[in-house]
Amino acid sequence: MKKLINKVEDIVQEMCDGIVASSNKKLRKLKDCNVIVRKKIDTNKVALISGGGSGHEPAHAGYVGKGMLSAAVCGEIFTSPTPDMILNAITACNSQKGTLLVIKNYTGDVINFQLAQQMAQAQGLNVDYVIVNDDVALADSTATTGRRGICGTILVHKCAGAMAETGASLAEVKRVAEKVIANTATIGLGLDACIVPAIGKKNFELGENEVEMGLGIHGEPGVHKEEMKKVDKFVEEMFEAINKQLKLQKGDKVAVIVNGMGATPLMELYIAARKTQKVIKKAKAKIEFMMTGNFMTAIDMAGMSITVTKLDDELVKLLKAKTNALAFK
Amino acid sequence: MKKLINKVEDIVQEMCDGIVASSNKKLRKLKDCNVIVRKKIDTNKVALISGGGSGHEPAHAGYVGKGMLSAAVCGEIFTSPTPDMILNAITACNSQKGTLLVIKNYTGDVINFQLAQQMAQAQGLNVDYVIVNDDVALADSTATTGRRGICGTILVHKCAGAMAETGASLAEVKRVAEKVIANTATIGLGLDACIVPAIGKKNFELGENEVEMGLGIHGEPGVHKEEMKKVDKFVEEMFEAINKQLKLQKGDKVAVIVNGMGATPLMELYIAARKTQKVIKKAKAKIEFMMTGNFMTAIDMAGMSITVTKLDDELVKLLKAKTNALAFK
Repeated sequence: MKKLINKVEDIVQEMCDGIVASSNKKLRKLKDCNVIVRKKIDTNKVALISGGGSGHEPAHAGYVGKGMLSAAVCGEIFTSPTPDMILNAITACNSQKGTLLVIKNYTGDVINFQLAQQMAQAQGLNVDYVIVNDDVALADSTATTGRRGICGTILVHKCAGAMAETGASLAEVKRVAEKVIANTATIGLGLDACIVPAIGKKNFELGENEVEMGLGIHGEPGVHKEEMKKVDKFVEEMFEAINKQLKLQKGDKVAVIVNGMGATPLMELYIAARKTQKVIKKAKAKIEFMMTGNFMTAIDMAGMSITVTKLDDELVKLLKAKTNALAFK
Repeated sequence: MKKLINKVEDIVQEMCDGIVASSNKKLRKLKDCNVIVRKKIDTNKVALISGGGSGHEPAHAGYVGKGMLSAAVCGEIFTSPTPDMILNAITACNSQKGTLLVIKNYTGDVINFQLAQQMAQAQGLNVDYVIVNDDVALADSTATTGRRGICGTILVHKCAGAMAETGASLAEVKRVAEKVIANTATIGLGLDACIVPAIGKKNFELGENEVEMGLGIHGEPGVHKEEMKKVDKFVEEMFEAINKQLKLQKGDKVAVIVNGMGATPLMELYIAARKTQKVIKKAKAKIEFMMTGNFMTAIDMAGMSITVTKLDDELVKLLKAKTNALAFK
């Protein structure tokens, strides 16, 4: 294992310091706690907080900024943050309008974010949450009841964050988040495993010519293994799974993310993006917004995911609103 | 070799189509030619064109946009674009104020961009160029006379592009580009080789516990091999090489890029960014701008580079000016 790190136990804290260093004074880190917060908190706008285990960078700290998240809670690698950390984030961003937690559907995250909500409510704070479950690969998984929350979470951050920025109420921001969740479908494809630093070796094995369709963002199993193919074939297969849920009709507006898992070159993601555009055009839907790059990774896993969100006019507007978050453009 | 591609010979063209698909209508591709151009060309402003072999994404197409490049010429992987392609870019972006070519110092690029300049001049066009040579690892290399041009090129794009956006003359834009070049130093570190798709295997070998200091962005040899260390030690060593050239004084203003080579997780780059901030603070220089991520890659190489540019007030202002290029934020 060759990794650009110091001590394994310092990885997340040192990473957080580096995120702040690279933010050009837009972000700060809470003292003695791996929570990244906007430098300027607007107490008149709903606070939006997300987070989870680290190893998915730029998620979620890269989405902290005006028009997106107020804070990101950075747990240890592939490990839910503790309720205390989440509570620290809630109190640091405390707004008169209340706080919405955006939770990716993993059992540990759901439990800890809900506990933090209860602790905050006990202090008289107004905190609600949504659970993102965009992964259409599996109905249940080894790490969740119900579907996993993966790359589509970023579009929840974007639309709910833009709504919060307008000064909307907590109920309105939650309504927007729920709408994105209901209309978002993602599926992943794994080409190679990742190495969790504390373990030091690959977390699963794939054959020389084998891929895993529907792989999770921690290397959890997907739907099935299959042979390596041309990327165009994979994109067709992935879009079919996505569209089984979305059932796109002629003229439907969509947002698309072609996401890399960490070690896949941008060159390959762009080739997949080209085909993704084609299959969506073939379904006669209209792409209103598309981004391609590394947005929700699994350390150094090779592979990609495709996310499609069906949009109405409200979501189109929120998606195109400005943000200064580091990783959204 | 598991790569998300179709036919090897179609990689660059399909990638260019995917870049356009992911640009939200900001970019277009020239017909039958792998050149990415801004959708709206302002013929009243100096055109800025760069490019080179592909495989370094997001360089250079990710830097095409208002306030940065007018066009990027995308050669085959690790292969200079032909003079014809470069000439196509020049004519597509033809401005009354002339064109500046930003060339990374590789023998093939220098020859082909200069040939294109001569062909354009023969058509009566006003074309000048600068050569970027920011790599302080080696005085000469296997692929160049003089130092190589690597990640610092992006800061040339940014400052010269912002200057062009003000409506400045070709001579003024060139002056700014030359100033960035004179004040920029970069050094790379390789942890693992990359796989060129047409070759299908790693382009060099490193031992289990070995890294290459000063590695080039095509896997060309660096200064020496050394043992794997803590990242803080590498950053100290790299900054020492950079500062041997820049000789930073107390109060000097700098811009910093901590750049990944393609397969290194953002998590690790942030840890390196944290230490980079520390060593620069220790040198009593002031960071005016810092960005961390994958900006000038070598397909799926593991490793990083650090770039530091000494800034005067003019460069600070140009660096902070707005751009809508996809990969600069």
